[in-house]
Amino acid sequence: MIDEADDAAAFLQAYIDAHGYLSWLGTQVESMERDRLVMTIPFDEKLTNTRPNGDDDDETANIHGGVAATLIDTAGGIALRPALDDPMEDGVATINLNVNYLRPATGDLIATADVIRSGSSVGVSTVTLESEAPDGEMKPVATGQGAYRLFRG
Amino acid sequence: MIDEADDAAAFLQAYIDAHGYLSWLGTQVESMERDRLVMTIPFDEKLTNTRPNGDDDDETANIHGGVAATLIDTAGGIALRPALDDPMEDGVATINLNVNYLRPATGDLIATADVIRSGSSVGVSTVTLESEAPDGEMKPVATGQGAYRLFRG
Amino acid sequence: MIDEADDAAAFLQAYIDAHGYLSWLGTQVESMERDRLVMTIPFDEKLTNTRPNGDDDDETANIHGGVAATLIDTAGGIALRPALDDPMEDGVATINLNVNYLRPATGDLIATADVIRSGSSVGVSTVTLESEAPDGEMKPVATGQGAYRLFRG
Amino acid sequence: MIDEADDAAAFLQAYIDAHGYLSWLGTQVESMERDRLVMTIPFDEKLTNTRPNGDDDDETANIHGGVAATLIDTAGGIALRPALDDPMEDGVATINLNVNYLRPATGDLIATADVIRSGSSVGVSTVTLESEAPDGEMKPVATGQGAYRLFRG
Repeated sequence: MIDEADDAAAFLQAYIDAHGYLSWLGTQVESMERDRLVMTIPFDEKLTNTRPNGDDDDETANIHGGVAATLIDTAGGIALRPALDDPMEDGVATINLNVNYLRPATGDLIATADVIRSGSSVGVSTVTLESEAPDGEMKPVATGQGAYRLFRG
Repeated sequence: MIDEADDAAAFLQAYIDAHGYLSWLGTQVESMERDRLVMTIPFDEKLTNTRPNGDDDDETANIHGGVAATLIDTAGGIALRPALDDPMEDGVATINLNVNYLRPATGDLIATADVIRSGSSVGVSTVTLESEAPDGEMKPVATGQGAYRLFRG
Repeated sequence: MIDEADDAAAFLQAYIDAHGYLSWLGTQVESMERDRLVMTIPFDEKLTNTRPNGDDDDETANIHGGVAATLIDTAGGIALRPALDDPMEDGVATINLNVNYLRPATGDLIATADVIRSGSSVGVSTVTLESEAPDGEMKPVATGQGAYRLFRG
Repeated sequence: MIDEADDAAAFLQAYIDAHGYLSWLGTQVESMERDRLVMTIPFDEKLTNTRPNGDDDDETANIHGGVAATLIDTAGGIALRPALDDPMEDGVATINLNVNYLRPATGDLIATADVIRSGSSVGVSTVTLESEAPDGEMKPVATGQGAYRLFRG
């Protein structure tokens, strides 16, 4: 038996798998609760920066900041859906996205989005991205907030 | 004879073409001056959102906000390079990225990045994205600012 | 004979003069056009930071960043009013405020707010603050953007 | 006997009391731990907005967003001080301040600042402001993040 949250996560994953950009990034929905969503983008060489001069022997490849921004924008917006009247039909559009970069992202990106406020027409989420550092520890690599227009009903 | 700015733009385009993520997006350098950079990402179906319910007959496909965030982050950072001591060797790392979304992006994305301040250790750019609206007019679709750590010398 | 814009500026100045916080800061409306507003806060010792240790002989006093944020928020929101149906009755509420600090503000703050987009329910302004640097030149000290909820009619 | 954290809070309060702007706002340090700081600004009529038309009988006065931005900026920066080598002598300067407004602030502002990252040259804090709503419940009224330049040693 599948419960409602698993249903929503499966529905969402199917949407992502049909989305050219998000599926190319490898975006996965890990879990979906009322006010918290966890999504990941696995580390992939194709997503990383190298130094313009091509000489990056001495540093670990790290994921482009635009990938982190995309994951924060996406996770923050989707996290607001369960509070809508019709989570899959009502609209969510980003008004503002803000991202602070904390460390180079050298492993899988794990995003945890928390709903801070879901008002009648605007919702706000905070999203933190963690990644495994070269020393093997999970560390925050970016943190951001998004404000979204909610189209209800 | 190729002048210095054309040289830099060609060098940069070669870097982008070798970058998995930026080349997949179709990123192009249009022009590069001391304090202004123009870059584009052409409209492509693979970059667009559809509604979760798949029923988007009644609306024009629009480019995912993460693509716009990526272009703003990238253009804003590269715009700061000409002011570095060694534009291609010195480092630029995003500290903060902020994006305001103005309209759905339904055509090619054209980013114009202007350097606002290039200090000893931090630089700030403002970037505006324009796109052709369904009515045929070029309109701003997103505007943002980035603060970047500059590693000089 | 007073024209409409002068009327609006005078109306606005009267509002500010009756506002405890904004009048204490010394906020002045300099000029008001359809898509551009100029406001100032004069330099005042009471608005400046000193170093926690009290030893600031070796540096010029500079205005607290919260004063700059207040001026950017205020100017960006008021700049959107002329495009409302009823500029003085309709509501404007900040959704998001983003500020990048560029240099210490050691003179009067002069804010220029430009409307980037005034949509049906959300408006966005870019605001740049300039101030006279110790070398006598006017320089940008902060730049920011605000997204505002517009309550029309 | 006074412990180190109380010492630091008392030192900080003395600094604020000597600061024209922060003391006029009524800023208070409530508690100071290694990675968390709590500060307040009490509700005061002088800090509130009224509608431009003066007709605000039907709504509760609410604190100007610039006061909230000031408190977020201040608390987020001070929260990073305990991790500095010399918390009271080393410098902290805001690079970027981002604020999302959630609800009108109709009571005392209580700011909780959490350090997300304290790097060698840049630190990031998340700050949430709560206030008592007209229904008597404490609710978040604004949430923001600040990125700060850390000057160590």
